[in-house]
Amino acid sequence: MKKYGIDIWSNNNFKIKGGEVVLNYKSEPSLLEITESIRAEDIRGPILLRFPHLIKKQINNLYTCFGNAIKDNNYEGSFNAVFPLKVNQFPSTLDAIVSEGKEFNYGLEAGSKAELILAMSKSSIGSNITVNGFKDKEMITLSFISAQIGHNITITIEGLGELETIIEVAQESKLKIPNIGIRVRLHSTGSGTWAKSGGMDAKFGLTSTEILEATRLLKEANLLENFTMIHFHIGSQIGDIAPLKKALREAGNIYAELKVLGSSALKNINIGGGLAVKYDQDSSSKMHNYSIEEFSNSVVFLIKEVMNAKSVEHPNIYTESGRYIVASHTVLITPVLELFSQDYQEKLLNFKQVNPPLVQELRELHRLINPTNCVEYLHDALDHIESLLTLFGLGYIDLQDRSNAEILVHNIIKKSLYMNSTLNIHEFEQLQVNLQERYLINASIFQSLPDYWGLKQHFPVMPLHNLDKEAIRAASLWDITCDSDGEIGFNPDKPLYLHDIDLDEEDYFLGFFNVGAYQEALGMEHNLFTRPSEYTIDINDNGYEILRSKESKDILEILNAIGYDENEILNKLKHDLSSSDFITEKEKSDTLLKLETLIKQNGYLRTTN
Amino acid sequence: MKKYGIDIWSNNNFKIKGGEVVLNYKSEPSLLEITESIRAEDIRGPILLRFPHLIKKQINNLYTCFGNAIKDNNYEGSFNAVFPLKVNQFPSTLDAIVSEGKEFNYGLEAGSKAELILAMSKSSIGSNITVNGFKDKEMITLSFISAQIGHNITITIEGLGELETIIEVAQESKLKIPNIGIRVRLHSTGSGTWAKSGGMDAKFGLTSTEILEATRLLKEANLLENFTMIHFHIGSQIGDIAPLKKALREAGNIYAELKVLGSSALKNINIGGGLAVKYDQDSSSKMHNYSIEEFSNSVVFLIKEVMNAKSVEHPNIYTESGRYIVASHTVLITPVLELFSQDYQEKLLNFKQVNPPLVQELRELHRLINPTNCVEYLHDALDHIESLLTLFGLGYIDLQDRSNAEILVHNIIKKSLYMNSTLNIHEFEQLQVNLQERYLINASIFQSLPDYWGLKQHFPVMPLHNLDKEAIRAASLWDITCDSDGEIGFNPDKPLYLHDIDLDEEDYFLGFFNVGAYQEALGMEHNLFTRPSEYTIDINDNGYEILRSKESKDILEILNAIGYDENEILNKLKHDLSSSDFITEKEKSDTLLKLETLIKQNGYLRTTN
Repeated sequence: MKKYGIDIWSNNNFKIKGGEVVLNYKSEPSLLEITESIRAEDIRGPILLRFPHLIKKQINNLYTCFGNAIKDNNYEGSFNAVFPLKVNQFPSTLDAIVSEGKEFNYGLEAGSKAELILAMSKSSIGSNITVNGFKDKEMITLSFISAQIGHNITITIEGLGELETIIEVAQESKLKIPNIGIRVRLHSTGSGTWAKSGGMDAKFGLTSTEILEATRLLKEANLLENFTMIHFHIGSQIGDIAPLKKALREAGNIYAELKVLGSSALKNINIGGGLAVKYDQDSSSKMHNYSIEEFSNSVVFLIKEVMNAKSVEHPNIYTESGRYIVASHTVLITPVLELFSQDYQEKLLNFKQVNPPLVQELRELHRLINPTNCVEYLHDALDHIESLLTLFGLGYIDLQDRSNAEILVHNIIKKSLYMNSTLNIHEFEQLQVNLQERYLINASIFQSLPDYWGLKQHFPVMPLHNLDKEAIRAASLWDITCDSDGEIGFNPDKPLYLHDIDLDEEDYFLGFFNVGAYQEALGMEHNLFTRPSEYTIDINDNGYEILRSKESKDILEILNAIGYDENEILNKLKHDLSSSDFITEKEKSDTLLKLETLIKQNGYLRTTN
Repeated sequence: MKKYGIDIWSNNNFKIKGGEVVLNYKSEPSLLEITESIRAEDIRGPILLRFPHLIKKQINNLYTCFGNAIKDNNYEGSFNAVFPLKVNQFPSTLDAIVSEGKEFNYGLEAGSKAELILAMSKSSIGSNITVNGFKDKEMITLSFISAQIGHNITITIEGLGELETIIEVAQESKLKIPNIGIRVRLHSTGSGTWAKSGGMDAKFGLTSTEILEATRLLKEANLLENFTMIHFHIGSQIGDIAPLKKALREAGNIYAELKVLGSSALKNINIGGGLAVKYDQDSSSKMHNYSIEEFSNSVVFLIKEVMNAKSVEHPNIYTESGRYIVASHTVLITPVLELFSQDYQEKLLNFKQVNPPLVQELRELHRLINPTNCVEYLHDALDHIESLLTLFGLGYIDLQDRSNAEILVHNIIKKSLYMNSTLNIHEFEQLQVNLQERYLINASIFQSLPDYWGLKQHFPVMPLHNLDKEAIRAASLWDITCDSDGEIGFNPDKPLYLHDIDLDEEDYFLGFFNVGAYQEALGMEHNLFTRPSEYTIDINDNGYEILRSKESKDILEILNAIGYDENEILNKLKHDLSSSDFITEKEKSDTLLKLETLIKQNGYLRTTN
């Protein structure tokens, strides 16, 4: 993995300069420098860095590419986009989206009442809001209130029951009526990891029969003039553009048919999200097979073609891509706390006068191994260690014998790995796994990379520095949760090599990239590890500025958030400690102070050797 | 699935009485009755019911079985247990654990600083605390403070670096020194889903060489008298007892060896957790192959055998099972909001004067299908619908044709499913999948069943009522998140059948059982759906009482928790609404009131048709 695949996944957002990862923008600050300046303020634990200029870049790309496609195809409709809040609802991200999107009239999408309230309170009057997902009467009423306020809001109907409720609210109130959209159920299916969104058995969307029934109901209720949008979504992180093209034809035909059948207010086609993000670090990996230019061009061209064939006006195009907009703007930075070396040092060998025969044999193998015999000797050694561990389990050899055997075998593995290249590939990989170094990172995978846990989604990872030195250690990454799932194991198919670092002498930081979509919204508080400290960085021509910061919750805040009374906890501990049997009053007051300091720090690790 | 497998998974905690699920305890209240009494207080959305008597039962079982095993084996050590907080740190569960465990001196285990603070503040003085996981100097200092307060605390060393820090803190302070444990890395591996915990490549534990080095360091620092425990953990939800037996022999030998080598204060062996919980509803499914009686007996017998062989005193046994203690005490109850029927009604057929040839053919198939020809006709129909959907995508047939075709094919599938039993099993299953009914549940799978999303962990599910009626609809469950992963699909291998309910006429509630372990701690706030409302229920001889309750966060609280200013949001919306163009002042004040009411309700769905 040359340069950790930065050319593959970073979209020119980052580059390597002077052995460090730097932002490829204006003053080109280094991530290490930013991290160290934050840590200089006594901040410990994982850190999220946000770069709003990368949100701006993505919004700009999206509108530019669709704008060009519209021009090139002489397309007569307009392009509109909304950001789906579920991808990232947090204040510093949302503020950047709203402010950077203003010039394009970039809107927001809501999938729940809480998200709708957020959309309503953060959008400028007149901007686009779309409302997807299952809705109760309250959420539908909120959409009417939003229309009344002056937002250009469209409610997407996910079932006929919702339409009945819309009709009910329209009849009961005198509020402005929102635009109405219909999510259509397509036969064409997606091809991304999240492809279940499409297809006839999908969770969402109305069948043709239901669509016809819906238009009948709308007409009957005099709401046909509010029916303005057809919506579909074939899945997130679309890998292949072919199914999208099929879906566009199908949805385009439904749109055109409905226009022909009398839905004259219909003017928008919402193609959902799905624009993929590059998470791979390895050029040989399967990635999505299209560019944003091809994507926008295909969408515009196909919709135009379908509409022209049926002599229907070109609709305005809406998209709801979220991952594409925000994935790149957040970097997770985790300090490495410790290297758990699997290098069993020979100096720790401690032989007895008389050693068990198999240990004696291992000793001979270790002494006599050479490039010619090493494969044979390796196989013998692996066989012997199995037997020795079995003997230990049955009580026939002692702990010192076992220790000697482990050291000898690990050194035999190491020697044969470096001596010989005739090992078959499977064996070679297995030996690398055996010799891997464990890097303990000050972070929780459950909290900060939940899609790795749930979907085995790989995120680009690399050290922030030392990039002018060779990284030779096959690495697995352990997080600090007390859970064996909290590990990104060494994967011989996508090998990660890191540096051999003496952490007593220097710090070592890893960056996980493209983590700005979903990871925070889905973060799990396993072992009560909460959201990392976060910093929004504005890069200018002369340097950078930290625009806003929010430190990770302290321990008392964490307990408070799950329903405990923080004062009660602190007082109880202070009381118990004060009542204990101290040698001196000074010792007591020092310890109380230490306790109060500790409990007001965040829950991640702080001082390690 | 007879009675939804209640005899398989419920451990006699629940039973069916009068067509409803009732607690099999004292006054035997029905879950429906409890649910309805809570909903009578205008509570909507999913509900967590907690039953502390089930925690008491499990603690009691654990101590009784190990007590019996100790007596039957003339074992000379004692039995001790701690509850690992990571499994459920929430106040109502923890309070029940602490109060029900008091008579047994049941302790707590902490895996992070926040959990250690919780353990220290909730344990009685003198009770057992164990501390696992990676530790910084602060966490180690906290352990010293805990020892100073008077807890019987043991720090488990996960690496030599931690031991160095312990020695450092012991030398720097005059605080009481905690007990020290060593986690050992075993050759024997576990066999559960979470089996990565064991084995030579596991995340946790010291190798033999490191163990010998640790004892040397302890001796040098005069801390050998504090080294009291050997710890191991082969994984959660152990399926097979054989690997545990191997691990016990191995760890037992390490313990005995260390005693022989001079670690004279060593007196405890901690076997970690792993006691499995029954999540399966189907007797044919593979489950764990042991009872708690066999488990405890094997542990006691094997440790005794190893110690006797090496003439070492029997150690005290510690366990850290958490899932076994709390899984059963929580039930998630979700209202069904809507049935998305795939029953395309024939009355919606709307043929034209001239229909496309394939539609005409489907019409004939539908008219002429009979038990003799139905398999052939079914295959023809499935073939035709593929072609018709392709024709639609290309613009050759219209929406009404497509609708007619869908209705006809679905009715042909339905007819052939009921007419014929000569379909091969694969086809039969596929047709069931095609005809499944979608039940929309007022809950988030990401929030309340995260292990289903991440690990495909099945949880027992059944309706709370109607159990005297036949359930015939093949069911898939949709949650209300705007995510296609928020679905528990119909699985022909573990089929779920639910009732055909007219939700306009009656309510329908589903219960998910054994959800008390990990699900809350891992809950994700996808689409900003937060923790369900929860109720702790004390069952007595005459009825039941709600001991404590906590309603799900309201929308403003949700936004506040992720960093927004709730007043700012409310004021902005009120201001925008007030400035809008209302027809009457009355309408304006009514709408403002409606907005304020809505925003102070929880985020789940409320009023649906």
